[in-house]
Amino acid sequence: MSSPRAPLTVYGMSTSGNCYKVRLLLEQLGTRYAWQEIDSANGQTRTADYLAKNPNGKVPMVERDDGRVLVESNAILHWLAEGTPFLPADAWQRAQALSWMFFEQYSHEPYVAVARFIRGWTPLDSPRRADLPRLRERGDAALAVMAQHLDQHAWFTGPDYGIADIALYAYTHCAADGGFDLGRWPSLQDWLRRVQATAGFVPMVQAGEDVRARLAAAEPA
Amino acid sequence: MSSPRAPLTVYGMSTSGNCYKVRLLLEQLGTRYAWQEIDSANGQTRTADYLAKNPNGKVPMVERDDGRVLVESNAILHWLAEGTPFLPADAWQRAQALSWMFFEQYSHEPYVAVARFIRGWTPLDSPRRADLPRLRERGDAALAVMAQHLDQHAWFTGPDYGIADIALYAYTHCAADGGFDLGRWPSLQDWLRRVQATAGFVPMVQAGEDVRARLAAAEPA
Repeated sequence: MSSPRAPLTVYGMSTSGNCYKVRLLLEQLGTRYAWQEIDSANGQTRTADYLAKNPNGKVPMVERDDGRVLVESNAILHWLAEGTPFLPADAWQRAQALSWMFFEQYSHEPYVAVARFIRGWTPLDSPRRADLPRLRERGDAALAVMAQHLDQHAWFTGPDYGIADIALYAYTHCAADGGFDLGRWPSLQDWLRRVQATAGFVPMVQAGEDVRARLAAAEPA
Repeated sequence: MSSPRAPLTVYGMSTSGNCYKVRLLLEQLGTRYAWQEIDSANGQTRTADYLAKNPNGKVPMVERDDGRVLVESNAILHWLAEGTPFLPADAWQRAQALSWMFFEQYSHEPYVAVARFIRGWTPLDSPRRADLPRLRERGDAALAVMAQHLDQHAWFTGPDYGIADIALYAYTHCAADGGFDLGRWPSLQDWLRRVQATAGFVPMVQAGEDVRARLAAAEPA
C-alpha cells in the first residue's frame, strides 16, 4: 500500500529489519503511506539533504506531510501504535512492551542484526568478520532470554501480539543470515510462526542476489 | 530517600549511569523507594537469584512490593513518568522524547558509557583498551548530534525538562571519564548546567578511589 500523496512517508531500506518493522506495522494497521527507498549501505543516509532531516544519519525515518520527522524504529512503532490494539492499554503492560523494545535495541540488534550485516553486506575477506564469534555469543544470549520468556508467554507485547513482537521479529526471523541456529529454541520458532499468522502480516523484502551469494558462502558461525 | 518498606525497590549499581537515571527521576518525583546496591562489576547480576528475576542479568531493575519487576532503564523512566510533567502530554512530543531515549541506548551509551567503563573499571593493560579510539569516534558523533539539537532547543524531552534529558544526562555529564572533551560543545555544557539546576536534582555517586586512580592514569583519548 503506497501512494505519493500519502500523509506519511517512510524513508527506509527494504532489506533492513529496523525499516521492515515500520512497514509491517503500517500494513497491519492499514495506514496509507509512501515508501522512499534509501540505500544506507551506499551512503544515501549521509547526504546533506538526508542529514538535514536526520542528523544521526540512519533509517528508518518517517516524515509527515508538514515536514516534521520522527526517527528510531521503535519510537516510530510506539507512536504509530498508541491507541491501537498493538500497544496494551494497561500502563504496566505497556512498560513491559517498551522494556522488550529497549532489550531489542541494546542486547539483540547489535549482535543478531550486525552479524547478518557483516555476513551479507561486507566482502568475504572483510576484517569485520573477526567480530562474528563475539556477536554469535552475545546474540545467542539474547535469543536464549527470548526463548525463556516464550516458554511461559505467547507474546512479548502483553496478552496479545503487538509492537514488541514486531520489534523482536524483525531480526529474529532472519537470524540464520547471521549464522544463528534457531533450531535450538523451539518456543522461539513457534512464536515466529504465530507472528507470521497474524492478520495483515507481510514478509520482509528478500536481499539481492549478491547478498544472498555472500550469505551462502559465509563461514558457519 | 530510602526505606526498607518502600513500595518500590531499585536494584542498581550507584556508579552506573543507567541506574542513576532511575534514582534521579525518583528523587525529582519525590517517590519513596528502597535502594538495593548490586555490584554488576563483581558478578552480582549473574547469581541464580538475580537471574530468576531478570534473565538478562543487568541493572537497573525495579521490583514492586508484589514481586513484579521491570527492567531496562529507559522503560523504567517511561513507566515512572507517565502522567507526570516529566513526560509530555502531546503524543508527537512523547514520541520525540522516546526517540532520543532509543538514540541514547543505541548511538550514545554503547560508546560514551562503555569508554568510561573500560577506562575506569578494567586494568590499565586490558586488551579492551584497544577499542577506545573507535568508541571515541562513535561517541563524539553522538555528542555532536546532541549539540546540534541543543543549538535550537533547550531540552530533549520537549518544551520542558523530562525523561529524555535524564536518560541523556546520565552518561553525558561524566563523558570526560571516557576520554571525551565536552569543551568542544558549549551548547552541551549549558544544557548540563540547566539539568543540574532543576528542582530536586541529585548528583551521581562518585566512583571509588581505585576507579578514580585508573581514570586519572588512563591514556588521553
